[in-house]
Amino acid sequence: MATKLWQKDYPLDQRIADFTVGRDRELDLELAPFDILGSIAHVTMLEEVGLIDGAAARRCQAKLRELYTQANSGNFTIEDGIEDVHSQVELMLTRELGDDGKKIHSGRSRNDQVLVDLRLYFRHRIRGIVEQTAELSRTLTNLSEEHKEKLIPGYTHLQVAMVSSFGLWFGAYGEALIDDLRLWKAAYDTVDQNPLGSAAGYGSSFPLDRDRTTELLGFQSPVVNVVAAQMGRGKTELTVAFAIAGLAQTIGKMAMDVCLYSSQNFGFLQLPNDLTTGSSIMPHKKNPDVFELLRGRCNLLQTLPAQMSQLVGNLPSGYHRDYQLLKEAIFPALDQLEDGLAIALYALPRTEVRGQELPTDPRYTYLYSVEAVNNLVLEGIPFRDAYQRVGADIEAGTFQPPTDLKHTHLGSLGNLGNDRISAKLTDVLKGFAFDRAAARLQDLASGE
Amino acid sequence: MATKLWQKDYPLDQRIADFTVGRDRELDLELAPFDILGSIAHVTMLEEVGLIDGAAARRCQAKLRELYTQANSGNFTIEDGIEDVHSQVELMLTRELGDDGKKIHSGRSRNDQVLVDLRLYFRHRIRGIVEQTAELSRTLTNLSEEHKEKLIPGYTHLQVAMVSSFGLWFGAYGEALIDDLRLWKAAYDTVDQNPLGSAAGYGSSFPLDRDRTTELLGFQSPVVNVVAAQMGRGKTELTVAFAIAGLAQTIGKMAMDVCLYSSQNFGFLQLPNDLTTGSSIMPHKKNPDVFELLRGRCNLLQTLPAQMSQLVGNLPSGYHRDYQLLKEAIFPALDQLEDGLAIALYALPRTEVRGQELPTDPRYTYLYSVEAVNNLVLEGIPFRDAYQRVGADIEAGTFQPPTDLKHTHLGSLGNLGNDRISAKLTDVLKGFAFDRAAARLQDLASGE
Amino acid sequence: MATKLWQKDYPLDQRIADFTVGRDRELDLELAPFDILGSIAHVTMLEEVGLIDGAAARRCQAKLRELYTQANSGNFTIEDGIEDVHSQVELMLTRELGDDGKKIHSGRSRNDQVLVDLRLYFRHRIRGIVEQTAELSRTLTNLSEEHKEKLIPGYTHLQVAMVSSFGLWFGAYGEALIDDLRLWKAAYDTVDQNPLGSAAGYGSSFPLDRDRTTELLGFQSPVVNVVAAQMGRGKTELTVAFAIAGLAQTIGKMAMDVCLYSSQNFGFLQLPNDLTTGSSIMPHKKNPDVFELLRGRCNLLQTLPAQMSQLVGNLPSGYHRDYQLLKEAIFPALDQLEDGLAIALYALPRTEVRGQELPTDPRYTYLYSVEAVNNLVLEGIPFRDAYQRVGADIEAGTFQPPTDLKHTHLGSLGNLGNDRISAKLTDVLKGFAFDRAAARLQDLASGE
Amino acid sequence: MATKLWQKDYPLDQRIADFTVGRDRELDLELAPFDILGSIAHVTMLEEVGLIDGAAARRCQAKLRELYTQANSGNFTIEDGIEDVHSQVELMLTRELGDDGKKIHSGRSRNDQVLVDLRLYFRHRIRGIVEQTAELSRTLTNLSEEHKEKLIPGYTHLQVAMVSSFGLWFGAYGEALIDDLRLWKAAYDTVDQNPLGSAAGYGSSFPLDRDRTTELLGFQSPVVNVVAAQMGRGKTELTVAFAIAGLAQTIGKMAMDVCLYSSQNFGFLQLPNDLTTGSSIMPHKKNPDVFELLRGRCNLLQTLPAQMSQLVGNLPSGYHRDYQLLKEAIFPALDQLEDGLAIALYALPRTEVRGQELPTDPRYTYLYSVEAVNNLVLEGIPFRDAYQRVGADIEAGTFQPPTDLKHTHLGSLGNLGNDRISAKLTDVLKGFAFDRAAARLQDLASGE
Repeated sequence: MATKLWQKDYPLDQRIADFTVGRDRELDLELAPFDILGSIAHVTMLEEVGLIDGAAARRCQAKLRELYTQANSGNFTIEDGIEDVHSQVELMLTRELGDDGKKIHSGRSRNDQVLVDLRLYFRHRIRGIVEQTAELSRTLTNLSEEHKEKLIPGYTHLQVAMVSSFGLWFGAYGEALIDDLRLWKAAYDTVDQNPLGSAAGYGSSFPLDRDRTTELLGFQSPVVNVVAAQMGRGKTELTVAFAIAGLAQTIGKMAMDVCLYSSQNFGFLQLPNDLTTGSSIMPHKKNPDVFELLRGRCNLLQTLPAQMSQLVGNLPSGYHRDYQLLKEAIFPALDQLEDGLAIALYALPRTEVRGQELPTDPRYTYLYSVEAVNNLVLEGIPFRDAYQRVGADIEAGTFQPPTDLKHTHLGSLGNLGNDRISAKLTDVLKGFAFDRAAARLQDLASGE
Repeated sequence: MATKLWQKDYPLDQRIADFTVGRDRELDLELAPFDILGSIAHVTMLEEVGLIDGAAARRCQAKLRELYTQANSGNFTIEDGIEDVHSQVELMLTRELGDDGKKIHSGRSRNDQVLVDLRLYFRHRIRGIVEQTAELSRTLTNLSEEHKEKLIPGYTHLQVAMVSSFGLWFGAYGEALIDDLRLWKAAYDTVDQNPLGSAAGYGSSFPLDRDRTTELLGFQSPVVNVVAAQMGRGKTELTVAFAIAGLAQTIGKMAMDVCLYSSQNFGFLQLPNDLTTGSSIMPHKKNPDVFELLRGRCNLLQTLPAQMSQLVGNLPSGYHRDYQLLKEAIFPALDQLEDGLAIALYALPRTEVRGQELPTDPRYTYLYSVEAVNNLVLEGIPFRDAYQRVGADIEAGTFQPPTDLKHTHLGSLGNLGNDRISAKLTDVLKGFAFDRAAARLQDLASGE
Repeated sequence: MATKLWQKDYPLDQRIADFTVGRDRELDLELAPFDILGSIAHVTMLEEVGLIDGAAARRCQAKLRELYTQANSGNFTIEDGIEDVHSQVELMLTRELGDDGKKIHSGRSRNDQVLVDLRLYFRHRIRGIVEQTAELSRTLTNLSEEHKEKLIPGYTHLQVAMVSSFGLWFGAYGEALIDDLRLWKAAYDTVDQNPLGSAAGYGSSFPLDRDRTTELLGFQSPVVNVVAAQMGRGKTELTVAFAIAGLAQTIGKMAMDVCLYSSQNFGFLQLPNDLTTGSSIMPHKKNPDVFELLRGRCNLLQTLPAQMSQLVGNLPSGYHRDYQLLKEAIFPALDQLEDGLAIALYALPRTEVRGQELPTDPRYTYLYSVEAVNNLVLEGIPFRDAYQRVGADIEAGTFQPPTDLKHTHLGSLGNLGNDRISAKLTDVLKGFAFDRAAARLQDLASGE
Repeated sequence: MATKLWQKDYPLDQRIADFTVGRDRELDLELAPFDILGSIAHVTMLEEVGLIDGAAARRCQAKLRELYTQANSGNFTIEDGIEDVHSQVELMLTRELGDDGKKIHSGRSRNDQVLVDLRLYFRHRIRGIVEQTAELSRTLTNLSEEHKEKLIPGYTHLQVAMVSSFGLWFGAYGEALIDDLRLWKAAYDTVDQNPLGSAAGYGSSFPLDRDRTTELLGFQSPVVNVVAAQMGRGKTELTVAFAIAGLAQTIGKMAMDVCLYSSQNFGFLQLPNDLTTGSSIMPHKKNPDVFELLRGRCNLLQTLPAQMSQLVGNLPSGYHRDYQLLKEAIFPALDQLEDGLAIALYALPRTEVRGQELPTDPRYTYLYSVEAVNNLVLEGIPFRDAYQRVGADIEAGTFQPPTDLKHTHLGSLGNLGNDRISAKLTDVLKGFAFDRAAARLQDLASGE
């Protein structure tokens, strides 16, 4: 148990320091590589516009590239007593380069440094999530094809309604994920704009070339207005939070279905032993804990927009220290979402899929009532009359299910249209220029 | 005061009816034109695939076009005892056309009818909001140009920090709105897919041509998988809610700034009399109620994603009646957002903008400390040393503000970059193919 | 379709008026009787401290009592062009009494007038909800007794776990509601304090007797500090919102159970025909729409705290016009909660309750595994060994359910403890002094 | 950087284990002392009802008391590979006592063990928070007395409105906190009920004496119905979350005021240097980061109810593994709230409080307009006429502020009523029987 701020044996000044630093030292480690790349771009531009001489610039760049290699291999640490990653990088620079190291802070503030770190970081994380989501969509589409012959009841109002199949069920989630990617695209385009040069949120009298750092860091464009750049803090996180919440909604719903379908009252899915847990008092239990935790996690992730909105709501423009807490909410959320995607990717293909004997199970007979109605309609009887005739048969107990299903239209159980879904996925993925951005950062890191 | 369900004199069966119908009869009026267009498309396709004969189709189309004209001019009403718009349209059709009117329900369910209505409706509303937002962005950019010489303090931590201007302040919100439009683009592309043909969420045995209704209704593509189409309920609304919440965040923040800047302790803005209200006991008061209500409204709108998530969270796949309540939350929100945009468009250009005498106001002298530091840096002194020298002057009370500002870089107060912001807006607006969709609906309505 | 603020044919000044008045004219009707009672108390006190002469006071009181009778019988209206209830009451008073009518505004502001109205209103509404909740708890306890022999599976992880019963199920919700009442008690005690005399939130130079109005209006105590009284706006609503959300959570969960148990895959409950609806295409459907809407409504109500928090979050102390929107969120919520309680009270006793043949249904056999383990334990075998032995029997397919259940401890299916639950309810209800407060208001209204 | 589940070099089975265990091993350490006390109570009762022999019971009790001492001094650890505190305690018991150690699991499940741990833990934490809150209330009341002569403007709509004082400002928050304690009382009474004996949520066939464990653990009563006991999971946390959110709302608002009043545009408060931070580029800055972070933290805490509601919303009755995540959300929240209270207690008395020269500051002259109106009223002029006359003076620029304030009524700046507030606090604190509960646990721990 860590010592708590309100415990008596905690020195007062340490309480204040700990309260203000919070989890920064830990969370900032994630930002280290991006902080260093931002500094390389800044110093490169400073030299080009004549604010720092060529020799000093080269020494800074060389040292920064060395730190980048360190950060990228997980060997970057924030020393005791240093409050965040920016201070640590600056310390390492000035410790070795002296006055040259100090010059890098010209035309830059801690504020726009954090802003550029976060945008580069989010851009990186969005790529990871988008690629995993695309993989999950493809996995689901494949499972849809694999299990397309396995019928299950389709429910409305949790009442058995019409015939469905695992082809439809898996495919539906595969397609739903594509819409989630549209929100990630909005987040990506919002994030992928350069705030560097906005300094403390009001620009500076240095003749900075903001288009140049935009190019060096592979951003699509600058955030033009410096106040807008600062105001992006909070808003950027909110937009990413929407994308997280949207994706979590889809996965959470799928997890709910899995938990329900694994119940003995449904029996449509059977998780393998390594994905279930037992009970401390009931020897027969095989509980779908993995999917319950996935559902619960996705529910918590859906509250992220409310957290962001409440944190930044009613704050006037200009930086506020409250924004530090945004990181604490959203960084773990990105990890948790990726964990959830990884778990889904692992677990779904290993789950046993059990088609049901629908026409002979008395619980499911009425699934075929619409088919009966439709058959009458195809014989020329108006729909409403056919509906009443079948209803009367059901009431009288004389209803016979017409089990020969002929669902042929696009997206129905006889014509899943998975190729169309795959094409849609490809189309949406084209909107993300991940490789271009990564190439620029690679150039910056390698100095070529 | 309306009679309440829990009041003693309320007949029991009426309570149940009222509880289940809820606000549907009122909200559904908004859907009427779209419901009718969806029916025209459906009957056109039914005839083309041979499920309804040409004469019947033409009679249905003629009557539906007549109803459309009625609905479009606000003359469509839902009769007493009819629970929703779909029933009302069907009633008016069968009342006049008899059996022919009944045939239109082939291959369609109330479920996919609602789905298509909602998607057409949201597509329509998104257009209105996007166009108003673009107009507000342009208005703000114009105000930025108009007031670019008027200086105000820039704040960080609510402390005076550096020199800012109304050029920066207005322009920042003008640019921020563009990012909000990216979420509306995600919402638009999610919405603009055809669910028709999914019936009750499990398709049907009719040989429907779903690509044809997609084309007729001007959708970008079908929702392919029929279960995905049904699952879009709730998800579609959630995505629109994200777009609403994001835009509301920007406008709410601006309203907070206006309220603060109108305070006597700031005095940067003065609302005209018709935008202020007095006090019942304080004869001197001119309160910025309009912007306070705008701020409050925007805060409530930011909770919409939480409402959607809580409503659909943990519901397994398949339709649930809970979804009816989505309309009740999101329809008024769209109106309120448009009201807010209209109010902002009206009020902002009428607000008196008061630049401040920054260098001579003792509260604001230190705004120029960074300039002093930067001037030393441009003379060759390393940043950290210059920072300490100016800090010492301030401590000693000998600091003299260098009031000759030379902010020249992109997006700074001397170079606002509003043309770049305008170009960004134009670029983002290109993503919305509003005219194409409207033209298709026009064709459908006119029968050409 | 009402004209919308953003529609072209809407005059501009009317837009501003409509935007600021909002739904006040409609919502304020609910406040009318309480506004009038607050005025009677205020004028009575003013006369006692000598701020108004006896004759004028009596004329005001007489007219106010006349208006109260009107308001209480639903005949109070707000005239066109009058923006809220306070203005309407004042108008009716001065129209008839002239200068005497004006005097009532001494030592009072619109602000504390609204505050006292709201606290009297909430106190009244809390009584209604608490009494209905108590009635629902008693109904559930009765249903528990009635159906205590009907067994159903108990689930954990949605897996069949151990034997349960409708005695346990109904009784559990009956007891859970009692905890919800504890939050209502906190809300009641928070609300039941007198804000009158705080004027615009900073008191006044009039020698008001705030303890006297406290007594006249039947409040437990004054809100002492006048800034605290004003700050109660928002906070009061937040506290009521917590109570609403807590109760909604319980009822929503119960509704989810009802929907699930009504599914053919469970079949534990069968709603009567007048509580189900059919399908437009599936002739066999009997959907539990009433409970789905109850669930959905309860989910929306659970977001009320987030709405209140977002609305008032980060607003500094002192009144803000944003608070007007609190009414819009919370007044309908109170109605909806009462509607939900009324529906539950009506529907639950009419629902057919179907005990299950647990030991002979192969899905449910393992429910008895813990009993088998326990029997071995009672024979002296350590629990963990007994657990393993039964687990082995299950694995080998030789497990025989010991169907003779002997659950005797308090709260178990053989000893439900409903008398203890009833006693707990009685105890919690004692905390609410509804009758005392109502008697004071009655005195005030009758002038005795 | 910890290895993440979705990273390639993470073994698959380890991923599943880590995903399901989550943060349990860390969070459960907080539960250890309470888990052990629960076990002592359970084994004591088991012996009394004859389910375990006296010698075995005494051996268990002795070992458990040894573990309790260990846990209480922070020396309890969960071994590698052990997933939670319950398993660890059981392991340590059986390792030493063999079969006797196993017997303790009779008539108990992991489920009710967690339930009792959590309720004991929350009861303990509530005590800490209530006591700190009471201390903060008293501190604020003292500051109110200390600074009662220092005037500041009172604002409505963020416009200067009427004269206020630091006596009013501090006192208002002191009183507001008392209402927050009412929610903690509801949470305490909800929590303080014994779930032990509910086993997996459906009781057991053992003749347990649930009233006896209730007495031993110092609970006010049992949760009677075993399904209700299980259903308390989620609901208990939701109720605690309401109390957290309510208190956070008050403290967050106070922090907002502090940040605003510290701005140069107000200048009412000046934080000491050790409570401010500087800027990396602006040498003059003294930022109120401590109060900004307090505000931000309080805003995040206000979203806790939404997190709880979303997590448990729409889950049917019976245990779900999702509930594990409740701990992850609410345990840190309790710490953060206590941290915030500690910071407020430390910082507020150290803050310099600057009364303002109201009548001579042109921004504040109109604060006295209501006084002028009231003086006329006291001379016999009807309020509305007095109001118009002063309004005309203001309009004409001839208004003279009557600076001789005579606010004498209860709760006004001349009569703060802090003794009444203190009495109210004492009264509310009486509702918590902390000592009684602590004494019972002490008896249990010491075996006397």
